[in-house]
Amino acid sequence: MKKLLTPSGFPENLPQEQILENQFKNIFSSVCESYGYVPLETPAIEYLETLSSKGDINKEIYTITRALGESDSEEKQKRALRFDLTVPLARYVGQHYTDLLFPFKRYQIQKVWRGERAQKGRFREFYQADIDVIANAKLPLHFDAEVALIVAQIFSNFPIHKDIVIHINNRKFLNGLLKDHGVDDFDFALKTIDKIDKIGQAEVRVLMLDKLSVKEEAVDSFLKKISKNYPLKEAKIWLETITTQDEEYKEGILELLTVFDYLKDFLPKKGVTFIFSPKIARGLDYYTGTVYETFITGLEKYGSVCSGGRYANLSERFINRKLPGVGLSIGLSRLLDIIKNESLVSYPPPTTSTLLIGFNKEEERGKVNALAYKFRELGIHTETIHDASFSFGKQKDYANKKKVAFLFLEEGNFSFFIDSKRENFNTEQSMFEYIKNERALY
Amino acid sequence: MKKLLTPSGFPENLPQEQILENQFKNIFSSVCESYGYVPLETPAIEYLETLSSKGDINKEIYTITRALGESDSEEKQKRALRFDLTVPLARYVGQHYTDLLFPFKRYQIQKVWRGERAQKGRFREFYQADIDVIANAKLPLHFDAEVALIVAQIFSNFPIHKDIVIHINNRKFLNGLLKDHGVDDFDFALKTIDKIDKIGQAEVRVLMLDKLSVKEEAVDSFLKKISKNYPLKEAKIWLETITTQDEEYKEGILELLTVFDYLKDFLPKKGVTFIFSPKIARGLDYYTGTVYETFITGLEKYGSVCSGGRYANLSERFINRKLPGVGLSIGLSRLLDIIKNESLVSYPPPTTSTLLIGFNKEEERGKVNALAYKFRELGIHTETIHDASFSFGKQKDYANKKKVAFLFLEEGNFSFFIDSKRENFNTEQSMFEYIKNERALY
Repeated sequence: MKKLLTPSGFPENLPQEQILENQFKNIFSSVCESYGYVPLETPAIEYLETLSSKGDINKEIYTITRALGESDSEEKQKRALRFDLTVPLARYVGQHYTDLLFPFKRYQIQKVWRGERAQKGRFREFYQADIDVIANAKLPLHFDAEVALIVAQIFSNFPIHKDIVIHINNRKFLNGLLKDHGVDDFDFALKTIDKIDKIGQAEVRVLMLDKLSVKEEAVDSFLKKISKNYPLKEAKIWLETITTQDEEYKEGILELLTVFDYLKDFLPKKGVTFIFSPKIARGLDYYTGTVYETFITGLEKYGSVCSGGRYANLSERFINRKLPGVGLSIGLSRLLDIIKNESLVSYPPPTTSTLLIGFNKEEERGKVNALAYKFRELGIHTETIHDASFSFGKQKDYANKKKVAFLFLEEGNFSFFIDSKRENFNTEQSMFEYIKNERALY
Repeated sequence: MKKLLTPSGFPENLPQEQILENQFKNIFSSVCESYGYVPLETPAIEYLETLSSKGDINKEIYTITRALGESDSEEKQKRALRFDLTVPLARYVGQHYTDLLFPFKRYQIQKVWRGERAQKGRFREFYQADIDVIANAKLPLHFDAEVALIVAQIFSNFPIHKDIVIHINNRKFLNGLLKDHGVDDFDFALKTIDKIDKIGQAEVRVLMLDKLSVKEEAVDSFLKKISKNYPLKEAKIWLETITTQDEEYKEGILELLTVFDYLKDFLPKKGVTFIFSPKIARGLDYYTGTVYETFITGLEKYGSVCSGGRYANLSERFINRKLPGVGLSIGLSRLLDIIKNESLVSYPPPTTSTLLIGFNKEEERGKVNALAYKFRELGIHTETIHDASFSFGKQKDYANKKKVAFLFLEEGNFSFFIDSKRENFNTEQSMFEYIKNERALY
């Protein structure tokens, strides 16, 4: 028999890994919903034309064809799997514009597909978890703070024992700072600055001096300013000293100050910090204001685990309306892969139950089922042993493998095992009262 | 500007519809987890060979190709989108056999893709919600009851005001009953019986008499027996009167009696009944014992909304082990479509929040944010008005559109609106104490 496996780049989880992934998805959803963001799901399949901006077809896109050929007339247009969640969002908002309430605040946790070369940490099918606010015509700046706060809260709730730093910058500010140092080739400058973490500041300096007709002192002064990260309070002090006549620069400074002001009082309880990082450029020409990148302290080598920014017009290809937005995206599958590689969490047990009931007489299964039903009503996830002919020892081993508490019924007596404790009861009533109060089971 | 829409057969939800769909998914997951079933997700993409049983390629399968051609060597084998959740489960259990604890009890809520002709109630991309138990070598019969009980509990928790009837039969029993009436062409007989609901009993009678060399009285007696449904108690009385020497028939009867015995005491609280329905055949040769179909009372015209059964060997194509299983599958997207067409639910509001805080001075946003944060900590999903320059009336209208409670701050006074009630408070403390106890907000 030939072993048929999953194709390369299309990973799947063992039960304990899937349970962990679901915990992360649930944290993401519940924080977003606590702010009134609505869940969105779009189809995996879109017209290729929808996914191809300005006629450019991303070579990583997978198109679909029926295995034995097409037949329906409506299938003349090529269809493809989405490669991100932003283009489908833009199409969705355009398509359903009249049915949506604006600002449209949505979160979306769905798979995307990219036909990249399969390699460690790169998947061809993976989850993204996105949050965006789309406004009609005008998007207030407090949303740039809100989406960052939501992401901070999400990371704060994640059960990983590492600090998270959310780096914030502003494209208008960075353009202004470049102009202020005599640089006007923004495109080249931003793409070069974006490489600082990869190639180092010295190399960026060489590239800038090579290409830009700017004095050495100006480049050095610029690089010195952006090479540091500033806690929000220090950022404020620095930003308030800058005087300029340039409108874009002024706007950028004001936007940063406003966003920092909204953020300052609302740090989530633990493990997450905001920082002003003037070297964050975000290569895409898409972003027009606030930009974000997020790093795990000590694990910066993996790059940003959550990035995003503000864009002037989300759906211009789909509807003739100005719809500015701001959002952030977590590469969830990639983040979980880092968490796995770096052992950042202890995995949950390979079951969703917390209690296994054992017994030795198959004819008592009805009674045991009734008991299990009572536990479930209390919110205790309960399994019953699948084969009562197993010995007590084999049943207890099975509970240990599942890492759940074990309750054994024998001749009207009950033995309850949790962690290394054992308790005995000779009435169902006393057993039930005890277990009901065992918080570890909930 | 050309309007780019979703391709035909690939539907998507408006926010209130997505919120409802998620409620159903959450009910499904939480009931499964209360029984210790683990969540499973497999990749959307499998090798075409995995999906093609016995070399037969289902013509509805979509294969994938990179938009600009393949390049990686590992892409020589054709890959395709899954068309159900059972084949991927079989492949998964074969692939991860040594890493799984048996019986492997899993639930799976994922999309499947089928290149069918798009028509009302038929989608090309849709959700299935499956639950299965896979055992190593031997699968006890109590699982045939457990999966039915879980599904019953799930339907009982669904917020639809219709009764649900789960029809149960057994393939061994049906084969035995056919033999007992002199029929030995099971294949033809089962496929014909399967059509009773579509073409009527008279037509089935004609087909059987035409094709089978069996006396008219035998066919009539057989059809009379299977044309009725039996409540479990009545089923027991009938089944216990049957005497036979045929081993398969005997086994079928015993299996039904055993399963009914497990079911009798555990009817979920409301709206769901089990019934013995001897005409349920389930066309697939795949099933070998218990079979299930589920109908919404009064809406039988839509066919079964949840079907399944027991199979002797799940993964025979993937691993050289005998792995029997039993499971049920809800066509979730199709069910939600019926619910929508028949107005079986009232849709939730188009937001996940239950409270909107309004105010008129943008400079008070920090204070309002702090208040919203306190409400969220209590578990109240809270939004703040996005534009404080909106008049009180416009803000209240916005809250009404969102169908959420409205709290308005003005000069240290608080007005709280919920349903048609209004309450006024002149201290934050008194307002907070009042709202904290407003159960409708949780």
